[in-house]
Amino acid sequence: MTPSGFSPVGRAVGIDLGGTKTMGVLLVDGEVVARCKKATPRKGGPDDVLAVVAAVVDAVDPGGGAPLGIGVPGPVRPGSGRVPAAPNLPGWDHEVAVADELARLTGRRVVVDNDVNVGTLAEHRLGAGRGTDDLLGVFVGTGVGAGLVLDGRLRHGPRGLAGEIGHTFVAFRDLRDPEVPGRGELEDYAGRNALERRARHLHEQGRPTLLVELAGRKRMKSRIWAEAVEAGDEVATELVADAASALAAALASVVALVDVERVVLGGGLAERLGRPFRTAVEAELAERAFAGGGVPVVPAALGDVGGAIGAALRVGDEGGPRP
Amino acid sequence: MTPSGFSPVGRAVGIDLGGTKTMGVLLVDGEVVARCKKATPRKGGPDDVLAVVAAVVDAVDPGGGAPLGIGVPGPVRPGSGRVPAAPNLPGWDHEVAVADELARLTGRRVVVDNDVNVGTLAEHRLGAGRGTDDLLGVFVGTGVGAGLVLDGRLRHGPRGLAGEIGHTFVAFRDLRDPEVPGRGELEDYAGRNALERRARHLHEQGRPTLLVELAGRKRMKSRIWAEAVEAGDEVATELVADAASALAAALASVVALVDVERVVLGGGLAERLGRPFRTAVEAELAERAFAGGGVPVVPAALGDVGGAIGAALRVGDEGGPRP
Repeated sequence: MTPSGFSPVGRAVGIDLGGTKTMGVLLVDGEVVARCKKATPRKGGPDDVLAVVAAVVDAVDPGGGAPLGIGVPGPVRPGSGRVPAAPNLPGWDHEVAVADELARLTGRRVVVDNDVNVGTLAEHRLGAGRGTDDLLGVFVGTGVGAGLVLDGRLRHGPRGLAGEIGHTFVAFRDLRDPEVPGRGELEDYAGRNALERRARHLHEQGRPTLLVELAGRKRMKSRIWAEAVEAGDEVATELVADAASALAAALASVVALVDVERVVLGGGLAERLGRPFRTAVEAELAERAFAGGGVPVVPAALGDVGGAIGAALRVGDEGGPRP
Repeated sequence: MTPSGFSPVGRAVGIDLGGTKTMGVLLVDGEVVARCKKATPRKGGPDDVLAVVAAVVDAVDPGGGAPLGIGVPGPVRPGSGRVPAAPNLPGWDHEVAVADELARLTGRRVVVDNDVNVGTLAEHRLGAGRGTDDLLGVFVGTGVGAGLVLDGRLRHGPRGLAGEIGHTFVAFRDLRDPEVPGRGELEDYAGRNALERRARHLHEQGRPTLLVELAGRKRMKSRIWAEAVEAGDEVATELVADAASALAAALASVVALVDVERVVLGGGLAERLGRPFRTAVEAELAERAFAGGGVPVVPAALGDVGGAIGAALRVGDEGGPRP
């Protein structure tokens, strides 16, 4: 059976380890039969984080021995289950043998992959990516990340670095331009952190914006961006249009370079901005694409449980690196 | 045997069909045992072009029946050997069944692929790409093209469009900026045609340049660019530095997106500009690369016969699309 006709059979636990929450599911024959969510520790170190992971595993599959897949917010050394750095997790500034540690804590077989990779795998197998074996899953939130399915398999690359679309360059001159913040990478235009920096900078330069009114000194959450755009705020509208344009350029580059047939768009900010954002990206991608090669940009279908589902699917061989 | 330990065995004819010349080789166990070059017709249509191809085949393997691989300057429909368009060939404005036509003309089995793909395949198997199974071959000439080897195999993509690095976007705002020529694609900065347009534009704006002195009203060949840079011409130096920077940005994007371990740099302009150009690209790629993931940029090793060698290698299964 080809990957696109994939039927997940069997039982696995999937964990999506995020900076704020740790989400777990028990997946049986492709269905979520249990789920659990706990806050990820904000203090301490990797041991504290992995203890919470083990507790979530036990909550969704108590006493069971189903194998465990986990998506982590950082790169993973191919074939090793080791995670060299995870800046959004407390004290995770050194390499941690996640697979070995979790095997010891839970007594299960463990597979570790990047969170965006497993989110893309879930969309490919059970969500908005079904029916094509060549697709990009792109997630726009605090930053911008992506997973790449080529010929039905997740692309990891020899160093496990594949999919870092946030670090592709959409404005090459910015690297040396002292007038602009950032280096000209997609994330400098389309990630929520960078968008907030730009909005506050414009505000300080004397352009009033609802964004600062709504957020005050707190973080500009995705909800606030959606509200400000909805209300017709000029700064928000301008910056979001720029984000859509930069994202469309990066997607056109992906299509030209590896020839994918579909883009699945997810992530907190993209989901809040909704259909207008997605259709703007899709239209500009069509305009930019080489040889009329525009492709559909469809919304991610599995929501915030997609990462955990993908982590469970990743336990099977299909999602792994080519042998 | 893994692709990186590939030993080409057997006998095949390879043709590199270019806009100005048609190059042919007979490859036996990885060695070129015969070669032939003829001018590609500048007038007429696909029939005239394919007749010259058949003549070159007959010249390198007279009376033989070795299978034939051909690299063409245009996209190829996957699995069909059909070429929908080839703007650099006379009258080739409609789809041509190249594989079928050449099989009829030569009585041989025929495999058709894109010229840049087969050039990359040759470097991977027998040239500067040996020893890694994840690499990009990028060729800077009139335009900019690339081939991508992932996990030891050429990436074609479901529509046969993969490798079009010239159409990746390095300056996303240029699409809507009436002040700049081009759409912000790599080729608008790093291809020789675009570089010539920029040089003539600067010249018309009152900046003297050796480039126009040397070329007059004729085409600014790669040799002229190399001479002007060598002589310290300001316009040439500036434009070539900009080309190197745009190319480095595009390469950093490729490394971030698909994680290749090496870049092989070839093509008429890159070869003429030589080591200073290549090392500038390599240094800026290292500066731009995500997570310290810079990779070596090495010169193509097979010269202008690389395409024909790759076309012959493409006859084997290894270079084909995944089954």
